[in-house]
Amino acid sequence: MFFASRRAVVDSIGGDFAPAVDQLEQFVLRGGKRVRPAFAWTGWLGAGGDPAEPHSAAVLQTCAALELVQACALIHDDIIDSSRTRRGFPTVHVAFTDRHRSRGWSGESAQFGDAVAILLGDLAMAWADDMVRESGLTPDAALRLGPVWSAMRTEVLGGQFLDITGEASGDETVAGALRINRYKTAAYTIERPLHIGACLAGSPDDLISAYRSFGTDVGIAFQLRDDLLGVFGDPAVTGKPSGDDLREGKRTVLFAVALTRADATSPATAKLLRTSIGTDLSAAELEQIRGLLTDLGAVAEVERQITQLTERALHALDGCTATTPAKERLRAMAVSATSRAS
Amino acid sequence: MFFASRRAVVDSIGGDFAPAVDQLEQFVLRGGKRVRPAFAWTGWLGAGGDPAEPHSAAVLQTCAALELVQACALIHDDIIDSSRTRRGFPTVHVAFTDRHRSRGWSGESAQFGDAVAILLGDLAMAWADDMVRESGLTPDAALRLGPVWSAMRTEVLGGQFLDITGEASGDETVAGALRINRYKTAAYTIERPLHIGACLAGSPDDLISAYRSFGTDVGIAFQLRDDLLGVFGDPAVTGKPSGDDLREGKRTVLFAVALTRADATSPATAKLLRTSIGTDLSAAELEQIRGLLTDLGAVAEVERQITQLTERALHALDGCTATTPAKERLRAMAVSATSRAS
Repeated sequence: MFFASRRAVVDSIGGDFAPAVDQLEQFVLRGGKRVRPAFAWTGWLGAGGDPAEPHSAAVLQTCAALELVQACALIHDDIIDSSRTRRGFPTVHVAFTDRHRSRGWSGESAQFGDAVAILLGDLAMAWADDMVRESGLTPDAALRLGPVWSAMRTEVLGGQFLDITGEASGDETVAGALRINRYKTAAYTIERPLHIGACLAGSPDDLISAYRSFGTDVGIAFQLRDDLLGVFGDPAVTGKPSGDDLREGKRTVLFAVALTRADATSPATAKLLRTSIGTDLSAAELEQIRGLLTDLGAVAEVERQITQLTERALHALDGCTATTPAKERLRAMAVSATSRAS
Repeated sequence: MFFASRRAVVDSIGGDFAPAVDQLEQFVLRGGKRVRPAFAWTGWLGAGGDPAEPHSAAVLQTCAALELVQACALIHDDIIDSSRTRRGFPTVHVAFTDRHRSRGWSGESAQFGDAVAILLGDLAMAWADDMVRESGLTPDAALRLGPVWSAMRTEVLGGQFLDITGEASGDETVAGALRINRYKTAAYTIERPLHIGACLAGSPDDLISAYRSFGTDVGIAFQLRDDLLGVFGDPAVTGKPSGDDLREGKRTVLFAVALTRADATSPATAKLLRTSIGTDLSAAELEQIRGLLTDLGAVAEVERQITQLTERALHALDGCTATTPAKERLRAMAVSATSRAS
């Protein structure tokens, strides 16, 4: 519906812009887990929001706008990471690289693909704002939303920045990995969406505070699970090649814990970990690293943290004033986010 | 001031994010001609806006936010065009490429530079919205602004998309070049800023319509002047290497006119133009192309169009209900934008 509302201006611009925007629309509509809108909407319901209220449509549209922020983040992240597939399809920059090549256009195909993907990501970011602004929120709700919406976007961009800087500088600390996790994932995926839902409902501070504690803990645990799946997951289930995090040199908490432990117990193992990360590991080498992460106890340590964070989150949830159905739903979402296989 | 207001969230994110944001701040504050805010502010004054009004600060902040949209556009455009300098300094992606290299970090320096520049551009786009949202506009003014602000951002991104697509596909038509000019430059640089100023002031439709005609014509003429300067300008004055438009294969109106004329009169010349554009022209080859563009009458034709558009724009301005000081100011800005040497 929102995409249809952009049709007039897109068509007026002409050229091949409309078909390119169609690609963006397909990217947004065809998949993804809708984690952020779901947390925001559930947060709103839990804070007393009623779908029968006249302005519930405005709230729903605001929650849905999170998918456009996410579209920007994914499209740009895929350029940054040179990822080739996303949600089972070629990434946006790869799709436009292929189009350029198949048409025999001039210039570098990869540069063209990156350029289009940069612009479509920018468009998604700009349209996310349009979607919120045009949602029909009451002035009071819009006023409450503003700072949270703003913080969320700055945090996710800051988290991505920390991620690439940590990777480039070879930051080996657990603290560094946790910081990335906190801002790139936890705040952006769960804490701020819940916060958005709560502030749209005009929640009191104590509920907001409980939501944020819950969201931060579940969010960090969610990323820790993701880190484990990135190394040990089944590609047929996750949709991503297993081991890519290691090949790309991602500085995960899992890896940082393993390195800290290896430094304390086995310099040779530590050296092997350091020389392996960020290289094009063969299946056999990957299997060896998997064994090391397990033997060093890093996997068990991360599992322990996931359990502890999830328990603390569920405790905060139990004690808060959210409605019972929302608590049940958030509990299920927390369990699913932290114990999922994909 | 706006940057200072972001400090708390930026500092909370930690790591090297604050110094990177400082780079963005320097980029925004150190230069540029402030063309868009100036047109928006003058448009507001001309529509009866009074700097002594209590909400004039909100209007000023909204006008200034255009510089952040522009920061995103320039930073991302410089990645897309692989430009090395901007406003006399290394472009953002080049600055971060150099930083990566000088620190001996791991991975590809250029890829790191591009990644940081993508994220800082995104941040500028997100902050542009924050700046408008937090400006303190009256709800009525904010409501009027929304669709214009939205259209402007979609148009500039659409225009950039048309630009790279036109370049890649080798679109040789004058119409294609004019379309890019219309959306990438005219709407974004003059028409919409004036429109924004007028709608912030609550202008009647006839003034908005006059502003938009004036803005479109001056904007197109501004870009035609830019095209001429891109080939014939003095690098010491423009700050850009002369001939880069030709080397990069930019499909300007100037070039399209020359090609149309060459096709009609001299196939050999047309062939030379086609094989030269988008190649790494030597100084001698560049001088030869300059001669051809002049001899074919393309330069004179573009000059004629600039004159005609400027005259029509000034006529629309004369006949509108803007205040006399604003008319004088807009007249001077139109002349300066279309007859400038840099």
